[in-house]
Amino acid sequence: MKRALLSVSDKSNIVEFAKSLIGLEYQIISTGGTYKMLKEAGVTAIEIDEVTKFPECFEGRVKTLNPYIHGGILHRRDKQSHLDQAKELGVEAIDLVCVNLYPFKATIEKTDDFEEIIENIDIGGPAMVRSAAKNFDSVIILTDPSDYSLVLNAIANGDNTVEFRRDLMIKAYEHTAAYDSMIANYMNKRFNNGMGNKQFIVGNKVMDTRYGENPHQKGGLYEFDAFFSKNFKTLKGEASFNNLTDISGAVKIAAAFGDENAICIVKHGNPCGFAIRDNLLDAYNEALKCDPISAFGGVVAVNGVVTKALAEKMNEMFLEVIIAGRIDEEALAVFEPKKRLKLFEYGSERITLSNDAIDFKHIDGGFVFQDADRVTAEEVKNAKLVTKHVADEAAMKDAEIAYKVASLTKSNCVVYVKDSAMVAVGMGMTSRVDAARCALKKAEEMGLDVSGSALASEAFFPFRDSIDAAAGAGVKTVIQPGGSVRDEEVIAAADEHGMALYFTGVRHFLH
Amino acid sequence: MKRALLSVSDKSNIVEFAKSLIGLEYQIISTGGTYKMLKEAGVTAIEIDEVTKFPECFEGRVKTLNPYIHGGILHRRDKQSHLDQAKELGVEAIDLVCVNLYPFKATIEKTDDFEEIIENIDIGGPAMVRSAAKNFDSVIILTDPSDYSLVLNAIANGDNTVEFRRDLMIKAYEHTAAYDSMIANYMNKRFNNGMGNKQFIVGNKVMDTRYGENPHQKGGLYEFDAFFSKNFKTLKGEASFNNLTDISGAVKIAAAFGDENAICIVKHGNPCGFAIRDNLLDAYNEALKCDPISAFGGVVAVNGVVTKALAEKMNEMFLEVIIAGRIDEEALAVFEPKKRLKLFEYGSERITLSNDAIDFKHIDGGFVFQDADRVTAEEVKNAKLVTKHVADEAAMKDAEIAYKVASLTKSNCVVYVKDSAMVAVGMGMTSRVDAARCALKKAEEMGLDVSGSALASEAFFPFRDSIDAAAGAGVKTVIQPGGSVRDEEVIAAADEHGMALYFTGVRHFLH
Repeated sequence: MKRALLSVSDKSNIVEFAKSLIGLEYQIISTGGTYKMLKEAGVTAIEIDEVTKFPECFEGRVKTLNPYIHGGILHRRDKQSHLDQAKELGVEAIDLVCVNLYPFKATIEKTDDFEEIIENIDIGGPAMVRSAAKNFDSVIILTDPSDYSLVLNAIANGDNTVEFRRDLMIKAYEHTAAYDSMIANYMNKRFNNGMGNKQFIVGNKVMDTRYGENPHQKGGLYEFDAFFSKNFKTLKGEASFNNLTDISGAVKIAAAFGDENAICIVKHGNPCGFAIRDNLLDAYNEALKCDPISAFGGVVAVNGVVTKALAEKMNEMFLEVIIAGRIDEEALAVFEPKKRLKLFEYGSERITLSNDAIDFKHIDGGFVFQDADRVTAEEVKNAKLVTKHVADEAAMKDAEIAYKVASLTKSNCVVYVKDSAMVAVGMGMTSRVDAARCALKKAEEMGLDVSGSALASEAFFPFRDSIDAAAGAGVKTVIQPGGSVRDEEVIAAADEHGMALYFTGVRHFLH
Repeated sequence: MKRALLSVSDKSNIVEFAKSLIGLEYQIISTGGTYKMLKEAGVTAIEIDEVTKFPECFEGRVKTLNPYIHGGILHRRDKQSHLDQAKELGVEAIDLVCVNLYPFKATIEKTDDFEEIIENIDIGGPAMVRSAAKNFDSVIILTDPSDYSLVLNAIANGDNTVEFRRDLMIKAYEHTAAYDSMIANYMNKRFNNGMGNKQFIVGNKVMDTRYGENPHQKGGLYEFDAFFSKNFKTLKGEASFNNLTDISGAVKIAAAFGDENAICIVKHGNPCGFAIRDNLLDAYNEALKCDPISAFGGVVAVNGVVTKALAEKMNEMFLEVIIAGRIDEEALAVFEPKKRLKLFEYGSERITLSNDAIDFKHIDGGFVFQDADRVTAEEVKNAKLVTKHVADEAAMKDAEIAYKVASLTKSNCVVYVKDSAMVAVGMGMTSRVDAARCALKKAEEMGLDVSGSALASEAFFPFRDSIDAAAGAGVKTVIQPGGSVRDEEVIAAADEHGMALYFTGVRHFLH
C-alpha cells in the first residue's frame, strides 16, 4: 500500500482529494488542521505523531521536520542499501506529498504586525516540498490544489511516469523559490528601502509568444501575480512580443488622464497620436491627425469602450492592435473581417493598469532597478511660472497633457498639444533641438496648425534654440522641468516671444 | 553555554571560526564532513547523531531533518510554554547556525549528469537556514564564510543585537531564494526550453546609484553572478543609472568587432559616432565626426587601451563617461583635471562583455522575456545579393559594420558607414523613411560626404523611398533583412540607381 502525506494551508478540495487517494489504495498521513478536517469529514488518516514518534511541538513550529518523514520521502527506492536501512530504522516510504505553504503573501497584504508575519513563514512545508521534489524519481509532489485531478487521473490511468513527476518537481522548486523570493523582497522592502543585496524579479508565465523581439528569438509574457490572467483578455489574434511592449506604452498614456476619453496611437513604443475628447470617436479622429502615416499598422489604446461607430472609423485603415477597456459585441462584428487586426480588452469600462511600483532594465551582465516614475498632480498644478506671460486655463490643460505624454515618451522628446490633442511629437533622438525641429517639420508636412499649442519637454531645454523654433511655429505655452545652467537664456527667449513658460522642477527621462 | 551548529559545504575558514566560537564559550555541534575536518584539526565538537538520537542515513540524505535540531533552533526563548516544552522533550537550544549549501551551481557548470545534479540539491541545509532565520530573534544564521569575523566581533563586543541578527536573517532568505531560483531556472532550461511557468531574474547588488532614471527615483545596479564585481572598475566618478544603460549600449557596439580598434559614442542609449581604425586615436577622430554636437556629454566606449595621446584628444571636449578595456596611468593623469568626467575600465586589453543569453523588458504588470539577439558571422557572409551590381570587398566590410551597428541601435534605424566609420544614423523613429532622411539631413549639416557609403537597416525597407533617398546621397551598398511584400519594388529601385543590395533574411528589431 502506498502512503500519501497531506499537509495543506489552502484546504480547498483536500477532503475529496484524500477520498480519491484512498480509493486508489493510498494510506493518508496528515497533520494538525488538515488531519482535523479529514477526520471531521470521516476520512481515515494516520496522525503525523504516529509516524514521527514525536509530538507536534512549539505551537506547531515543529511537526514534520523528522527523519521518519524525510527519510520516508527521501530514501532511494532503486538502491538496496537505502531500502535495507529504511527497514532497519523503521522508516516507511511516503510516495506522495501534498503540501502548500503558510500564506505569507496574504499575511503581508493584511497586516504590518511583524510577529504575525514571521509566524507565517513556513518552515516544515518547504522542507517537505523540496525533499519530495528531490526524490521525484519515486515521489509525487503536489503544491497546487488545481493539480489534484491531474494527479488522480495519472495514478488511476497508469500515467504516473517519471516525466509526469519531473514536471511536478519543477513546479515544486518554482513554488519554494517564489516563496522565499517573496520573503526576501518583503524584508528588503521593509528594512532596506527596497534595494536589498539581492533583488528577485519573479514572473508567472501567461503565454509563450510566437517568437521574441525578432523571429529567431524565443519569447514569452510573464506577469507579476496574476495581472494579465485576471485583467487582460484576448478577443482576436495573438499578442506578439513587440505588441506587448507597445501595448504597455500605449495604455500608460491613454490611462494617464483618469476617466477622460483618451486615445493613444503607438508605433515602436512611442506615441504618434493622442487626443482627449468628449467622446471616443472624436478622440480617435483627432489622435489620427497627428501622424496618420506612422499610425499605419500601429497599436491603439482606447481608454473606454469601443462601440460600433468607433470600430467603423478604425476599420478604415490597417491597425495591428486595438486595446480597450472593452470592445462591445457590435464593434467586434465590425472588426471581424479584418484578418490581421488583433483585439484585446480589460473587461472594464476604462483601461486597467497594474501601476507597478518597481521598474528595471536589462543591461549586459545584469540589470538596473528603480522604483517607478510617476507624474504627480501637484507637479503640474504647482509648476512655477517664470515668464511675464501667463497661460489661460485651456492652455494650461494642454500643457498638462503635453507634459504627461512627454513623461511617457522616449527621451529626448518634445510634445506639442493643442485643444487636448497632440499635434506634433519628436522622440528618441540624441539631440533635443533635433527632436523639436523634426516634430515641427512633420506637423508642417501633415498640414497641422501648431499655432497656439503647448509644448512640453520631459527634461530641461539646454538652449533657447528649441524655444525659438517653437515660437516660430506659434507655440504659446511651454512646460518643462527647468534646471539648466542656461535657464535664464531660455526664459528670456520665452519672454521675447510672448510665451508663458512653466518649470515643474521634476525630470522624467524615459530611455 | 551557547550552542552553535556548523554544517558547511564550503569549508573555508571553518576551523578558525569554530575555534573562535569555542573561545567565546560556544559548544560546537557538527555534521559529516565538517565534523571530520574539525576533529582532525583538534577542535572539540559534538557529532550530530548525539543530538538527533538518530543515525545519519540514506548516504547523508537525512542528517539534520530532526526535531532535536529544528526544535533547538525554532523554539521561542521569550515564551515560557516553549521553554517548558523544550525541557520536557529534551530539546536543547541551538543559538547559532552556520550552514552553506551543496554546490548546485558548480555542479551544473561542470556536468550534465542528472543524478549527480539531483544529488547536489541540498535539502537539510536550506531547512536549517530557514529555521534559524525565522527565529532570528534568538538565533544567529550564517550562510557566508566572509561573515564569520563580523559575527565573531559582534558576539565578542556585545553587538549581537536583534537588528544585527535581522540583517543575517534577510541574507539567509536571499540565500535560499537564490538557491531555489537557480534550481528552478536550471530545470526549466533543461526541460522547458528556458521558458518555464515561472521565471526568476535574480540580481546581486553592486551598488546603489545616486538615484534612478530621474532624481526622484531610487536606483541601483544588480549583477548576474559577479559580472560587474569581477570585471567593471570605477577609476573616477560614480556611474549613474543612465550612465549604466548607456555604457551597456556603447560597449556592445564597440566590442561587436572582435579585436578591432573600435570606438562608439553613445547618447541616450543610441550611437552618434562609431569608427574602426588601425589605431584608437584615429578611430576616435573619425567616430567624433559623425555628430560632434550630440557627442557632447556623451558616453564613449573604447575597445582597447586609452593612452596619453587618445586621452589628450578626448579631453578637448566635454564627455561624461569613458569606458575602455583599460585606461593607462598617463591617460589617467591627463583626465585628472576634468571634474565631471567619469572613467571606467574592465582591466583587460579589450572590452569584456557578459554576453547574457537572456533578455527581458519590464512592461506594466510583468515583463516580456526572450533569449538574446545575436548577429551571427554567417548572416552577413551568406547575405543574398539581389541586384545586378555587386559590392567590392571594402564596400562589403562597410555593409557588415553598418548592419551590426544597426542591430544594436534602437528601431526604426538606419546606419550609413563609409571607410569603416559611421557617417550618418537615424534611430528610434516611428517611420523608417523619416529616420533615413533625418540621418542624411544631419550628415549634410555636418558637412559629411555620404557618397560611396553602405546603408544598413535593422528591418526591411517597406517602400523604395529610403533607397531613393540613399541613392540621392550617393550610397552604393545596401544591406537589410528583406522580406517586405514590396521587396521587388525595393530591388528595382536599387538596380535603377546602380546599387548593390543584400538581403540577410534576419531581422534585428531593438526597442
